[in-house]
Amino acid sequence: MNDYRFYQPIEIRYADIDAQRHVNNATIFSFLENARAIYLQHLGLWDGRNFESIGIILVQTGCTYKRPIAYGQRIHVGVRTTRLGNKSIEMAYSIREIDDGTEFAEASSVIVAYDYQNEESISVPPSWREVIADFEGLD
Amino acid sequence: MNDYRFYQPIEIRYADIDAQRHVNNATIFSFLENARAIYLQHLGLWDGRNFESIGIILVQTGCTYKRPIAYGQRIHVGVRTTRLGNKSIEMAYSIREIDDGTEFAEASSVIVAYDYQNEESISVPPSWREVIADFEGLD
Amino acid sequence: MNDYRFYQPIEIRYADIDAQRHVNNATIFSFLENARAIYLQHLGLWDGRNFESIGIILVQTGCTYKRPIAYGQRIHVGVRTTRLGNKSIEMAYSIREIDDGTEFAEASSVIVAYDYQNEESISVPPSWREVIADFEGLD
Amino acid sequence: MNDYRFYQPIEIRYADIDAQRHVNNATIFSFLENARAIYLQHLGLWDGRNFESIGIILVQTGCTYKRPIAYGQRIHVGVRTTRLGNKSIEMAYSIREIDDGTEFAEASSVIVAYDYQNEESISVPPSWREVIADFEGLD
Repeated sequence: MNDYRFYQPIEIRYADIDAQRHVNNATIFSFLENARAIYLQHLGLWDGRNFESIGIILVQTGCTYKRPIAYGQRIHVGVRTTRLGNKSIEMAYSIREIDDGTEFAEASSVIVAYDYQNEESISVPPSWREVIADFEGLD
Repeated sequence: MNDYRFYQPIEIRYADIDAQRHVNNATIFSFLENARAIYLQHLGLWDGRNFESIGIILVQTGCTYKRPIAYGQRIHVGVRTTRLGNKSIEMAYSIREIDDGTEFAEASSVIVAYDYQNEESISVPPSWREVIADFEGLD
Repeated sequence: MNDYRFYQPIEIRYADIDAQRHVNNATIFSFLENARAIYLQHLGLWDGRNFESIGIILVQTGCTYKRPIAYGQRIHVGVRTTRLGNKSIEMAYSIREIDDGTEFAEASSVIVAYDYQNEESISVPPSWREVIADFEGLD
Repeated sequence: MNDYRFYQPIEIRYADIDAQRHVNNATIFSFLENARAIYLQHLGLWDGRNFESIGIILVQTGCTYKRPIAYGQRIHVGVRTTRLGNKSIEMAYSIREIDDGTEFAEASSVIVAYDYQNEESISVPPSWREVIADFEGLD
C-alpha cells in the first residue's frame, strides 16, 4: 500500500452498480482509466484537454477482484509505474477503501507511447522517462 | 440558482467523454440519477444500501443542454422537489460549474412512489411528504 | 406504432441492467442516441465515420418510461422526424418489444444543425431538409 | 480461431466510442461480460432472469488489445472454457471482425462458483462440470 505515491479518489455512482448490486467489473476499468489519466496530468505529461496529444495507447490490462465494492463506499485508486521499457510503460493499481485501506482490487496495465498523427508506436520520450523515473524513484 | 438548497458535486471521468469530446448526453442522466439518490439519502429517505427499499420509480425525465461539458470541468448538480403530488414527486435539476455558476444543463423528472414488493405505485408516504415539504419550504 | 418508417433493433447487454434489475433509465438515452445515429446513416446524412462531420448537436431530450425493460427482452427503437424547423429538427422515438409491439418508452429530442469547425448553429442544410421530408412524407 | 465453438455478435453503439474515437477499453469488458452471460444461457446454466441464481463470481480478468475497434465494425466475441478447476472456471475470449476474422482483442477470465445466499465460493457443481466438459470437449 505504501508503494503508491499517487492516489486518486473515485466517487461511486448509482449507475456503477450492476444487477449483482456491486460495482460492475467493467466499470472498474473505467476507474483505472480515469486514475491513470489524472496521474499523467499530475506528472505534467498530459494537459487534460487535447485528446490527440495524449501520446499513449493501452495494449494490455488486467484486474484481480478481491472484494465486491458497494454503493456508498469511499474508495481511491493507487497508481504507479512499475517499469519503463523502450516503447512501453507498465503500471500497477490498487483500489482501496480510503479510511481503513481494505483492498478491493489489484490491477496492472501496459501502455505504449503512440504518435496519433502517424498512427504508430514510438519510443517513450526522454522527457516522460525522466519525469516518471523521478516521481517513482525508478532507475 | 439560489432556488436549490442541495448541490451534489459530480467528478467527471475520462469515460464520460464521447466521440464529440464532451460529456455524453446520456451520461448526464446518470449524473442526475446519482444526485437524486444522494438527495434522498441527505433527506433520510433512503439508506443507500437496500435497492428494494428505495420506494420510487422514475416515470419521466428530460434535459435541456445549454453548453457542452468538457473533461476537467468542476461541476455540481442542484436538485430540488418542485411539486408533491398524490403519487408523484416532481423534481428539477441544474448542472453548473462550481466556481462561476455557468449553467450547462437544466433538467426535470417525475418519480412515483412505488412498492417493489407488490410491484405497484402507491401514495407518497406522509413521512416523505413531510420531510420533503420541510426541506424545500413547500406547502 | 405504424407512424414509424424506421426501426433499429437494440441488443440489451448485461451491463445495461442496474441495481433495480431493469435497463437503467440513462442507458435508454444511449439506445435513442444509437438509433438516431443509424437513422441518419440510413438516410445518407452521416457516413458513420467522421465524428466532426456529423453536423448536429443535441439540445433537448426527454423520455416517458411506461414499463421496465428486462434482460433478454427483444426490443427495437422507432425513430422519426416530426418537425423540420429553420435550425432545428424534432424527433420522436418509441421503444417496443419486437414481437408483440408492447411499448416500453416514448421519447423525443431536438437537435440543431451545427458547424463543428466554427462552433455555431446553422440553418438545416437544404439537402438534409429534402432527404428527411421525402423519407418522412413531411412538407 | 477455430478453437471457439461459441461466438456472440455484439452490436457496437455510438456510446461505446470514447474520446479517442474507438471502442473504449473498459467497454470491451462489458462485451466480454455479455458474451459470457449468453454462453452460460446457451449451455443451459443460467436462465437469463434470476440474478441471484447466476452462481458465479468474477475473480480475475484481463485483455490484450491488438487493434482499435471503430464504430460501424461488425464484431463477435468467441467464448470458451479452457480449464475446469475445483472451484474455478477459466475462460478465453477472442473479439473478431465477423466477415474477415481480424482479431481486435484476446482476453481471459477466471470465475468462481459462488453461493449468493451464503456469500461463499463453492465447488463447481457436477452438473455444470459435465455440461461444460461436454460442450468444449474437455476431460
